[in-house]
Amino acid sequence: MDIQQLASELKTQNDSKIVMLVADGLGGLPREPGGPTELEAANTPNLDALARRGVSGSMYPIARGITPGSGPGHLGLFGYDPVKYLIGRGALEATGIGFALGPNDVAIRCNFCTLDAEGNITDRRAGRIPTEESAPLAIKLREVKIPGVEVFVEPVKEHRFVVVFRGEGLGDDVGDTDPQRTGVPPLDPEPGDRPSEKTVEVARQFIEQARRLLADQPKANGLTMRGFSAKPDIATYKEVYGVRAAAIAVYPMYRGLAQLVGMEIVGEPSTLEEEIDVLEKAWADYDFFFVHFKYTDSRGEDGDFDAKVKMIEQFDTIIPRVDALKPTVLLVTGDHSTPAKLASHSWHSVPTLLLADDSRGDTCEVFGETEALKGALGHFPAVELMPLALAHAGRLGKFGA
Amino acid sequence: MDIQQLASELKTQNDSKIVMLVADGLGGLPREPGGPTELEAANTPNLDALARRGVSGSMYPIARGITPGSGPGHLGLFGYDPVKYLIGRGALEATGIGFALGPNDVAIRCNFCTLDAEGNITDRRAGRIPTEESAPLAIKLREVKIPGVEVFVEPVKEHRFVVVFRGEGLGDDVGDTDPQRTGVPPLDPEPGDRPSEKTVEVARQFIEQARRLLADQPKANGLTMRGFSAKPDIATYKEVYGVRAAAIAVYPMYRGLAQLVGMEIVGEPSTLEEEIDVLEKAWADYDFFFVHFKYTDSRGEDGDFDAKVKMIEQFDTIIPRVDALKPTVLLVTGDHSTPAKLASHSWHSVPTLLLADDSRGDTCEVFGETEALKGALGHFPAVELMPLALAHAGRLGKFGA
Repeated sequence: MDIQQLASELKTQNDSKIVMLVADGLGGLPREPGGPTELEAANTPNLDALARRGVSGSMYPIARGITPGSGPGHLGLFGYDPVKYLIGRGALEATGIGFALGPNDVAIRCNFCTLDAEGNITDRRAGRIPTEESAPLAIKLREVKIPGVEVFVEPVKEHRFVVVFRGEGLGDDVGDTDPQRTGVPPLDPEPGDRPSEKTVEVARQFIEQARRLLADQPKANGLTMRGFSAKPDIATYKEVYGVRAAAIAVYPMYRGLAQLVGMEIVGEPSTLEEEIDVLEKAWADYDFFFVHFKYTDSRGEDGDFDAKVKMIEQFDTIIPRVDALKPTVLLVTGDHSTPAKLASHSWHSVPTLLLADDSRGDTCEVFGETEALKGALGHFPAVELMPLALAHAGRLGKFGA
Repeated sequence: MDIQQLASELKTQNDSKIVMLVADGLGGLPREPGGPTELEAANTPNLDALARRGVSGSMYPIARGITPGSGPGHLGLFGYDPVKYLIGRGALEATGIGFALGPNDVAIRCNFCTLDAEGNITDRRAGRIPTEESAPLAIKLREVKIPGVEVFVEPVKEHRFVVVFRGEGLGDDVGDTDPQRTGVPPLDPEPGDRPSEKTVEVARQFIEQARRLLADQPKANGLTMRGFSAKPDIATYKEVYGVRAAAIAVYPMYRGLAQLVGMEIVGEPSTLEEEIDVLEKAWADYDFFFVHFKYTDSRGEDGDFDAKVKMIEQFDTIIPRVDALKPTVLLVTGDHSTPAKLASHSWHSVPTLLLADDSRGDTCEVFGETEALKGALGHFPAVELMPLALAHAGRLGKFGA
């Protein structure tokens, strides 16, 4: 029994409200040794005030040294062991473009490629065909019809698109058809188990019809398929924690990840201010609110320290509006670190803050990586954040008598 | 292999002495934000001196956010994973009144109830019959005789009593007979597996004979049975750690919990001073001493901050007597927090102290929740306390070559 199962068994109901504010890629690194991180360099009077009122901690997303992608990073925050609940590549790609996967779906990441007259691959990415050219081709592939199976085709970007097969009994243990080199034809899809034989049959039909539809294309006259995967079998927030959960996010990827755990997607915000508008309007209707802010991660990925500082300062400005709602528990955290110095996700811990009437208090005076090291929450894995939040919200009963 | 199994494999013998002082429900919360907890408010010169000489840490009983009952709280302190070793409700009730469960026992929590002429329950608690009336009735039920099985009946309080069946091959997977409502008869006990069919047969005979013995009672003319459970299958302190362990406690519940892990119950103390008398007298005869102080928890449960402070100050006064015995390792901790603010057990960490010649030292100046956050022991789960104690006592060998 893991901590999530234990928390689930102990769940109780009340009228508390929990808000989880996620600044994507929040954690950072000093530009130079001894200097401040992005968060420490930023002027964040509101977050610092929360740090004095609440408790801080240093949260590692998966385990020390492990750098998470967005999927595992968020699953951990949501309290699902990211090593146990794996999201297949195809499912993540579909989720990332906002496609709501159902229980009978198998999602596949596809690439357009260029084939020569013998059917051998000459370019695995169809000359990195621009999206303006590839998107109409993906949409054209919606003409594919396969008896007994619904077929969805969604453009992604450049040579990439997503295919979803929907039907009873489709397995997802199917080998990739990308041979990872040129001069050879795409591989035949191979089933790894019995239910996947049906999926392979469907995939072969798809490939055959697609080849006909693409036959006259100069660049994108073929395709490869990778990462066949079903929707992961994950219990919902309602089932696990007994809360009505709302997700407020601008980007499809994070709306999709929240949807995978059964959160309801609320509103169509396009800025952080609009996200808080949505939060205020939905306040009465949910028990738990996941609010996602993307740009701390984006500017970290750009390697732009100063721009990430500015995004953190923007994030800080909305804190009073959230605080004014008087959530029973307010969490401020990130799904991982994205130090501008590395211009990528990293394994470093994420400064995390919990504000609740029944927290014990610590000596942290500001919200930052170094200060969080001495916080009352200690150094802890992301999967323990939800149990902590539920406990402080009075939503967990006693274990044993 | 969990940490306890690892410690067990590495155990060695020497003539060290370990004392574990447990102030039940020790951890607390500030009355007002920013204020001191009960322990921080208390005048504890002796504990503070220990904190300066030893090392501190912030211990969570089970996992972050999880509030333990007394059973799991103590199992954790004793080094047994409380999520793995579950104590059934009947077994805990029997343990709580000091009944020493054996390996062939099944313990059951019973309620007297009131039945009407049709055998339907009119009051599930027999009008909350006072103990003076119910205890003689429980004792009267000792007249029940069932071939091949020993039957024990023990009064508890008001409508509650405990029944223990002792016999070969009795399963404990039996459904409750309390229908949880009135106007219907008690349920028939139902077996969940094969060995429990025998237990059900015994339970039916018990119910039938008991009904006859209680037939002329105005209130308590029936009974219900809940929480059928065997003694949990737990290796003893001697087996696991190789120590002769003594338990010194005033309350039956804690004597019982210690007995579940094979500690010997020493003395019949009724005050903390008397507990230390017992400790001094038994000093030569054991390697490990569990000393339990109840009233820190009781006053926390009462919601009485000042009274809990006083109990902590009383606890502090006995420290010099324990210190004078020069234990190789002295532990001071609690089984969980019981903040007066919440008037109940809570999930908050427990300040914990270890004093030993071979501890490394830290910067803690007083014994308290906030100070312990920066201690050398870090933030750690209760199950790691025993390995730490054994190591500092020189009782754990090297792992691997």
